[in-house]
Amino acid sequence: MEHRIKKIRAALTEAGEAAIILSDNNRLYLSGFKSSAGLVLITRTSAYLIVDFRYGEAAQKKVKHMDVIVYDRLGDTLISLIKKHRVKKIYFENEGITLKQADRYKKILRECETKASFTTYLDNVINNLRIIKTDDEIKKLEKAQRITESAYTEVLNYLKPGVKERDIALELEYLMRKKGADGISFDLITITGKNTSLPHGVPGNNVVKSGDFFTMDIGALFDGYHSDMTRTVAVGEVSEEQEKIYNIVLTAQLAALKKIKPGVTCGSVDKTARDIISDAGYGEYFGHSTGHGVGLDIHESPTVTVKSDKILSAGMVITCEPGIYLPNKFGVRIEDMALVTEKGVKNFAKLPKELIII
Amino acid sequence: MEHRIKKIRAALTEAGEAAIILSDNNRLYLSGFKSSAGLVLITRTSAYLIVDFRYGEAAQKKVKHMDVIVYDRLGDTLISLIKKHRVKKIYFENEGITLKQADRYKKILRECETKASFTTYLDNVINNLRIIKTDDEIKKLEKAQRITESAYTEVLNYLKPGVKERDIALELEYLMRKKGADGISFDLITITGKNTSLPHGVPGNNVVKSGDFFTMDIGALFDGYHSDMTRTVAVGEVSEEQEKIYNIVLTAQLAALKKIKPGVTCGSVDKTARDIISDAGYGEYFGHSTGHGVGLDIHESPTVTVKSDKILSAGMVITCEPGIYLPNKFGVRIEDMALVTEKGVKNFAKLPKELIII
Repeated sequence: MEHRIKKIRAALTEAGEAAIILSDNNRLYLSGFKSSAGLVLITRTSAYLIVDFRYGEAAQKKVKHMDVIVYDRLGDTLISLIKKHRVKKIYFENEGITLKQADRYKKILRECETKASFTTYLDNVINNLRIIKTDDEIKKLEKAQRITESAYTEVLNYLKPGVKERDIALELEYLMRKKGADGISFDLITITGKNTSLPHGVPGNNVVKSGDFFTMDIGALFDGYHSDMTRTVAVGEVSEEQEKIYNIVLTAQLAALKKIKPGVTCGSVDKTARDIISDAGYGEYFGHSTGHGVGLDIHESPTVTVKSDKILSAGMVITCEPGIYLPNKFGVRIEDMALVTEKGVKNFAKLPKELIII
Repeated sequence: MEHRIKKIRAALTEAGEAAIILSDNNRLYLSGFKSSAGLVLITRTSAYLIVDFRYGEAAQKKVKHMDVIVYDRLGDTLISLIKKHRVKKIYFENEGITLKQADRYKKILRECETKASFTTYLDNVINNLRIIKTDDEIKKLEKAQRITESAYTEVLNYLKPGVKERDIALELEYLMRKKGADGISFDLITITGKNTSLPHGVPGNNVVKSGDFFTMDIGALFDGYHSDMTRTVAVGEVSEEQEKIYNIVLTAQLAALKKIKPGVTCGSVDKTARDIISDAGYGEYFGHSTGHGVGLDIHESPTVTVKSDKILSAGMVITCEPGIYLPNKFGVRIEDMALVTEKGVKNFAKLPKELIII
C-alpha cells in the first residue's frame, strides 16, 4: 500500500499539490479499507483516510499506513488539513466521481484558496498503477478463478432438462460462497435456449431442454478481486449448426488467446478473434468487444476493442471472450481470464473448452 | 411507465428542450428495462431507450412505451435524433452521472448547436417522482420485506454458539434467493460480540459466543426494490448493561416510528429518536442518522437527518433505525422500513422487537 501512495505522490510534481481519491475501488486500492463512503487525501508529505462515524472504529483498526480521521463536518476537517499542509491545488478523479460530488468539493474549496482539478490526470496515474497487477493481486485473482471453476464443475451435475435458469444461478452463487467467495463478480448469467442469443441475458424461469445450449458467464469475488469466465455447453443433443458455430467461436478464442503477449496491441487481439468470425460469415453477430481488464473492477483498463492501440505489458489481466449470437436462435460465448506474462500468456482458467454435451 | 415519461416531459417547459437520463436506476424507473449501460432520451413529443448491441434484442422485446434504438456509434445516433426533433437544450442528471460521462456528452453536443445543462434540475424532477411510491412499487417493497422476514425467522434456528458470522450471512442470502429474491439489498451485516459496535461491521470468521449480541442488518432485493431491516438478538444470556442499552434503543425506535406521518419533517423524526438516546446519556454513541428513503436504491430521498426540513407525505418509504454503539464493547440497532400513509404510518416489518435471548 505504501508503495502505491508513493506512486501517487510522484505525480504531485509541484509544491502544494495534493490528490483526493473518492471512488470506492481506488480508495480501497490505496487504503486497503473497504467502505461505501469516505476519501483518501494524499499530499506531498502525508496521507489520510477520512471517513464518517460508521466506519471510524473499523478503519482505525485496519489502516496503519495512513492517518485515519473520522469527520463530523467534512468541510471543516478538509479545510483544516488543507491549511496545515499548505495545499494549493488538488487533483480529483474524473472517471469515478459524480457531478454532485464534484460540486460538493468545489463548494468546500471555494472557502479556501485552493484550486481543484477534475481532469483525467489523476485517473491516468491510478489506472496505470492498477493495470499492472502485483503478485498479491494475481494470487487473489487466481483464488477467485479456482472458486469459480470448482463451483462450475459441481453445478454441471445439476444441469439437466427440467431445471430452471435461475436455479442454476442460485446454486452457483451458493457453491461459490461455500467455497470461500465473498460474493459474485456480477449478476451471474445462466441462460438457455433462445435466451443464449442475448449476450447479457437475465436468468429467469426458462427451463433447460434437450437440444439447447446453456451459457454460463460467471465469476466469484475474492477479497475484492473478480474472476470472469464463460462456458457454453449443449444439453442432450446438438445440431450441426450449433456445433459449427461453437467451433468457430472456439477457434477464434484460442487464436486470440495465443496472440496475447507483451508488445502486442489490444486491437490486434480483438482483430484476431474478429477476423476468424467474420471470415466464417458471422461478423455481424459478434457485436461486442473481445475483452476487458479485470481486477478490483469487473471491467477496467485495458479494453480489448478493435480500435485500441494500447500495448499489452506483463502483469496485465484481460478476458478473452468472443461470441456469436444468432437472434431468436442461440448464441455461443467462450471466455477465459488471462495474465500477460514476460513470456506470453498464462490462462487463469484450467477447464477444457471442447464442446460438452450433457 | 407512460405516466412517468409525461411527468418528465412536463418539466420541459420550453420548445426544443429535452432530457437525457443516464444513471442506472433512473433509466430503469423510466424504461422498465434493467441494464448496465444505455440512456433514455425524452423530448417534448417522443421518448427513446438507446442501448448498445448487448442489450438490443432484450430491450426490443421488453420495452413498448418508448422507441428502442440500438446504436453503433452513440454520437451519430444522438445527433441524428437531436436534428430530427430540433432539440436546443438537453437537461442531464447531476447526482448519478460521472464527470467522464458528462465530458463525453459535452463533446458530442459540441458537434451540434445544442446546449447541455448539468444542474440538479432534472434530478429534482425525478427524485420528486420517485420519492412517492406507487401501489405497484409498494407491493414489491412489501414482497422484498416478506422474503427478508421469512429468511430471518428461519436463520434464527442456525444461530447458536460456535457458528461463524459469515455462515449466517451466507445462509440468509441463500434462503432469500430460494424464497424468490433476485439478490440481496446490500452486503448483509451479520456480526457478533465486539464487532456489533461497528455500525457497518463486516461479517468474518468471528464465532458466536454466549453472552454476545448478534446484529443482523439485512434485506432482500425483489424486482429492483430493496428491503432493509435490522434486528439485534442476545445469545445465551444478557448483562444488565446490554438489556438497558437495548431498551433505550427500542424506546427511541418506537417513538420515532410513532412520530412518522404526513406533514411532519424528517428532522423531527430524527430528533425524537436522538433526544431519547441523548437524555439517557448515550448521544455521542449514536453517530449516524435515524433513517433514509428506500426503493430502487437502498439509500434514496428523503434522508432522515436531524437537520432535514423535508416534510413527509403519503407514499414515502423510510427506514427508522436508531442505534447505540459502545466502542470495543457492543452495539445495538433496531430498524424497520415504514410507509407514510394518509393516516400516519404503516410498518412493513411485522416481526416483534422485544429482546430475544437465543
